[in-house]
Order: sequence, then C-alpha cells, then structure tokens
Amino acid sequence: MSKYLSERYMSLKPYEPGEQPQDRQYLKLNTNESPFPPPKEALDYAQAHARSYELYSDPESVELRQALAERYQVPIDMVMVGNGSDEVLNYAFMAFGSDARPALFPDVTYGFYKVFADVNRIPYKEIPVEDDLTIRLDRYAGRKALVVFPNPNAPTGIFLPPEEIARLAQRSPDSVIMVDEAYVDFGGTSCIPLTLKYQNLLIVQTFSKSRSLAGARIGFCVGAPQLIRDLQTIRYSVNPYNMNAYTQALGIGVLGCEETIQNNCRTIIENRAYLTAQLKALGFSCTDSLTNFVFARHPRLNGRALCDLLRDRGVLVRHFNQTRISQYNRITVGTKEQIDRLIAEIRAVLDM
Amino acid sequence: MSKYLSERYMSLKPYEPGEQPQDRQYLKLNTNESPFPPPKEALDYAQAHARSYELYSDPESVELRQALAERYQVPIDMVMVGNGSDEVLNYAFMAFGSDARPALFPDVTYGFYKVFADVNRIPYKEIPVEDDLTIRLDRYAGRKALVVFPNPNAPTGIFLPPEEIARLAQRSPDSVIMVDEAYVDFGGTSCIPLTLKYQNLLIVQTFSKSRSLAGARIGFCVGAPQLIRDLQTIRYSVNPYNMNAYTQALGIGVLGCEETIQNNCRTIIENRAYLTAQLKALGFSCTDSLTNFVFARHPRLNGRALCDLLRDRGVLVRHFNQTRISQYNRITVGTKEQIDRLIAEIRAVLDM
Repeated sequence: MSKYLSERYMSLKPYEPGEQPQDRQYLKLNTNESPFPPPKEALDYAQAHARSYELYSDPESVELRQALAERYQVPIDMVMVGNGSDEVLNYAFMAFGSDARPALFPDVTYGFYKVFADVNRIPYKEIPVEDDLTIRLDRYAGRKALVVFPNPNAPTGIFLPPEEIARLAQRSPDSVIMVDEAYVDFGGTSCIPLTLKYQNLLIVQTFSKSRSLAGARIGFCVGAPQLIRDLQTIRYSVNPYNMNAYTQALGIGVLGCEETIQNNCRTIIENRAYLTAQLKALGFSCTDSLTNFVFARHPRLNGRALCDLLRDRGVLVRHFNQTRISQYNRITVGTKEQIDRLIAEIRAVLDM
Repeated sequence: MSKYLSERYMSLKPYEPGEQPQDRQYLKLNTNESPFPPPKEALDYAQAHARSYELYSDPESVELRQALAERYQVPIDMVMVGNGSDEVLNYAFMAFGSDARPALFPDVTYGFYKVFADVNRIPYKEIPVEDDLTIRLDRYAGRKALVVFPNPNAPTGIFLPPEEIARLAQRSPDSVIMVDEAYVDFGGTSCIPLTLKYQNLLIVQTFSKSRSLAGARIGFCVGAPQLIRDLQTIRYSVNPYNMNAYTQALGIGVLGCEETIQNNCRTIIENRAYLTAQLKALGFSCTDSLTNFVFARHPRLNGRALCDLLRDRGVLVRHFNQTRISQYNRITVGTKEQIDRLIAEIRAVLDM
C-alpha cells in the first residue's frame, strides 16, 4: 500500500476471482463458464453491425436495451446494461445501500456482496442460511434494507420459487430487493415479470453463463423506471461509456440465437444430472442445484484437500475457505467428456 | 429519483457527455473522435488472438499491459488498464482522494473531475487558470492534495512542458499528481518517463483519440508500483474483469500499428494548422492547441449562438456553459474536407 491510499480503503479486502493459472492446461471447472462457444451467428452479427470503433459507443446502449426489453417483455426504461453484472451490482450497492438502508445477504453466497458493501462503506449483515443451506426469506422481510441474494443461490445452486420473492417484495416496501439471477437459465424461473408489479424489485442477470459470453462482459438489470433512473445517475457519474460498440452489437446478436442458447441450457441440465449421479455413486452428497454447477461433499475427503489433489491432477474446481461450507467443492457442469475426465480423477484420488 | 436512492447521491449531478443525436446525420466535431478508422491490421489481430468468449477475460490483462510496458519502456507492474480512461480516473479519485487529501484541479478543464470528486464525496477546489487560460502549476505545489489536470488541458488545448510537471511532483511529496494525457499524442510530450523518477506521479492515457478507438473503451495509467497496487485493490473491489477479451487483443493489435497511428497524428497536426488559419481568417482567435481540437471564439458571435446555429446546419461543435469560456467553442480537428464544410457553414452563419 502506498502512503497515498485513502484511509477509507486501507483495510479493504478485494474480491478474489477463481484462479486462472497459466502454468499448464487445466480442465477448468472452477468459474462456471460455458463449455459451448457463443453462436457463430451472434459473432457475425457483431462484426456486421458494430458501430465504427473510431466513434464513441452509444452511452445509452439503446439498441441492446431495446433487444433486452423485447426479449423480457418490459419497457426499455426498465432496463440498464453494464460491463458485466459485477458493474451493475456495484452501481446498485452505491445507489440503494446506505447507513439508513444497510445491506442484508446470506452468509453462504456470492463473496463479492461483502466487498461491494465494504468498498462503498455500506453497513451489512449476513443472515445465516438454514442447516440445509436454503435461504429463508422470512428473515429478510419487513426491514429497511438493501436485500441481495442470488437465485439460484451460489455456491449452493438452490432455487427459491418466484412466489416467495413476490411475498418478500410485498412485505418489504422500505427495502430494495435485488435478485442476482446469474444462473437462472439452467432450470429456474426468472422474477423479471414481477418487476412490472413491485417497484422495489431489481433483477440482475448476466450473459456470462447461459449465453457463453463470460469474456464479453455483459450484464443487465430490470426494475421499475425510478430504480433504473437512479442507477443511470450513478453510471453517468462514474463511467458513462461503459459498454463498447462491439459488445453492444454482440449482445443483440446472441439475443437473436435463443434457440441455440436454450439447447445449450438443456444439455447442461442433462449433464448436471449425469454428473450428480456419478458423484453420488462415489459417495458424494450434492445440494439440489438448478445452475450450471454442482456443490458436492464427500464424507471421507476434506474439501480443501480434494480441491488441491484435483488441481495437482490438472482439474480446477472451486473451494471456499468458509467454515459452514469448507467440506464442499463447487464444480462447473461441463461436457460429458469433461465430466468423465473429472470423475476418473476423483476416483483416482479416492483410491490413493 | 426513487425513494430508495441513497442520501449520498441525492444532489449528484452526473457528467454530460457531448450530444450524440440520432435524428439526422451530423458532421460530428463535438467529441474529439478520430476521423480515421482503426488500422485494419489491429482489427485482424484482435480477431485472430482474442481469447474465446465463453471463457472469462484475463482480469490482469497481462498481455495488453506487457505490450504497453514495452511501448512506454516501464515495468509491467507500473501499468494498469481500464474500460476507458474515465474508469481509471475514477479509481484514482477513489484511491487517492479523501478528506485528508482533497482534489485540486483547474476551473477550466475536463468537466468530469468535479463529478468524480462528488460521487466519491471527496472535497475539491478549483484553481482558476490565468487570464490567458494557462494553468499555473505554482498554485498547486507543496500541498497535500490529489492534483489532477489534463496535459494538454481540455478544452483549451494548451500544453505544459514536462519540466514544469517534474518540478511540481518534486515540490509536492504529500500530493499525488495525476496528469491526464488524453491528447498528448498530437504534438505534446508525455510525462510517462518521469514516473520512473517520481513516486507520486500518475499518468493517465486513452486509446480513444490518437488510436481511433473511442468505441473500444481502452484507458491505462502508468505510475509507481505502489500506486498501481492501490488502484488494483480498488479495481478488484469493484469490477475485476473490467476489460473484455476482444478489447484486450485489440489494444495489443493497435500498439503494433504505431507507424499508421503516428501518420494519423501528423495529419491531424497539419489539419489543425489549416483549421486554425481558416478560423483566424474569419476573425476568430484560437488558443495555442496541441490537441486534436481547437478552442476558438469570435468577437462578434456569441459562443452558444454559434454552436446552436451550426447545429441547425448539421454541424456539431461543443460549447461549455461556463462563464469564463462561454464565448468559445471547442471544435474537433477532422479531415480537410470536414474542415472545408465547417468553414463554409461558419461563413454562412457570419453572413446571416
């Protein structure tokens, strides 16, 4: 740390993304990327339609937001886009979190929420998930808070039905309820339609998972026009030209390939069942995941040790160094071939 | 504003980018874009070398930073990249501005500095430029501050020699001196070499102007490794995957086309002289600009009125509604053909 760093950030602990080691080729099942490339039609669309690079990109991202509005059947003024959903989440923490409206999120969840609260100096409270790792929304209801959770939750994969979220929004008129639907396309149901009814509900999604565009950085959110206006105020005070021209066109392109994307999701759902069955056959227990990952533990194997042993064997999975889930690993659902390789390596570890 | 917006931002006035109207085709001389497309070799390089989109982009942007480090002859740990230089500037305001280290910048300068200070709740003071619109660095020396100014300054185009900046850095060991070199490639001299000597000097640049990539969003900064580490702490707490895969490759690609870029800069410098001469012939006076724009006023024409009249005639220039410079317009230097069209329209306005 330099002697110039603001005292505000001296104790800040940044988010740690999943490792991306360059030392050898790994089977990468640690960051929930898609095993499928983006559809060629989407890339061709971007090439053909992106605004010339010498000109600034549209700071309003009008065409991409219009395409999202049509896809999700909401007006365009209910949509904002960002340079990845992390950017959108950060703007929402800024806009809606404060001393008067602290952040509330589960103790077992996406590790970045804590960092967003810290970097913006918003007080927060972690609400413990139940013993079976489910989120009980009753515990968030009727407060004055910025409530944030993924649905399905990460890293557990457990999904809550939209009816429960509607009830929470209804019972919490002084709270903003932010639902991070990064993984909703793998068997869950989106709460986006509920944003037409509940003025305090904000849904955040990403193109990184189901749409195979982790490397393109496209996130978006849907909520009442007043919420979106507040987020735009923040965005225009931080980085108005936040999405580049090619990326805006690529987002539109992939929205035109929904059939391919839905086929990919169906394959992941099938493969998730296959992976879960294989893991169970080896003695693992798994949470009931509706995502593109499974969350698994073995009665005989320490979670950290399994992660390290697999790493030595060229397979990356994600372990979280957190008491309640230290026995688990989060494993991305890949292709059948990748699953077979993973299972073979786990079997070898078990035989050691 | 929604009832949920944090009290911190209730009076926040976001930055207003130059207008990008869609209602008709304009000759756009209002946002200092390049009239030249990016080199085809750079685009081809990006196509051939970008990491697959289904994978996350490198959050460290190692290859692009390495290419920048080689180009500017500094170690890689002295370089950080961002999604446009606005993102880099915001991170620097966050990291180095505070109650204890308020921001200082000229009263006539890039309008976003005030917004970065406001959004981060950093106190700031605007130091008046001299009557001839030059920045007198003596007035910033020896304080404990985050000193920020563009060199050349915008919208005046006036350049300060690196020796003066070296002296300021030397005389201000308790300050971070941040020099925004967005326009340095059009005849100025970069202070990047000085960062090897002064630990408190941070240089910010962009690929938006000389490198014809406004729509790609590539900014970077160079400074002492401790400063860069602080900025990385902020970046990893806000948006670690801030630059997409294609853009990282495109940045490397265009760094391989320096000859084309330097030819483009030479053409802009020639055209700037041509535009300045034409304007002077019509009675305008212009500041001594070392950028890709001129800053011009006419004794008989109100600045706002000229901007509006040109807009009616299909030409966009930028007027700033600020007392000391309200008589001026900032006009991007385009091609000779664009200049001839602009001059014809100004002549028509003068004849009205």
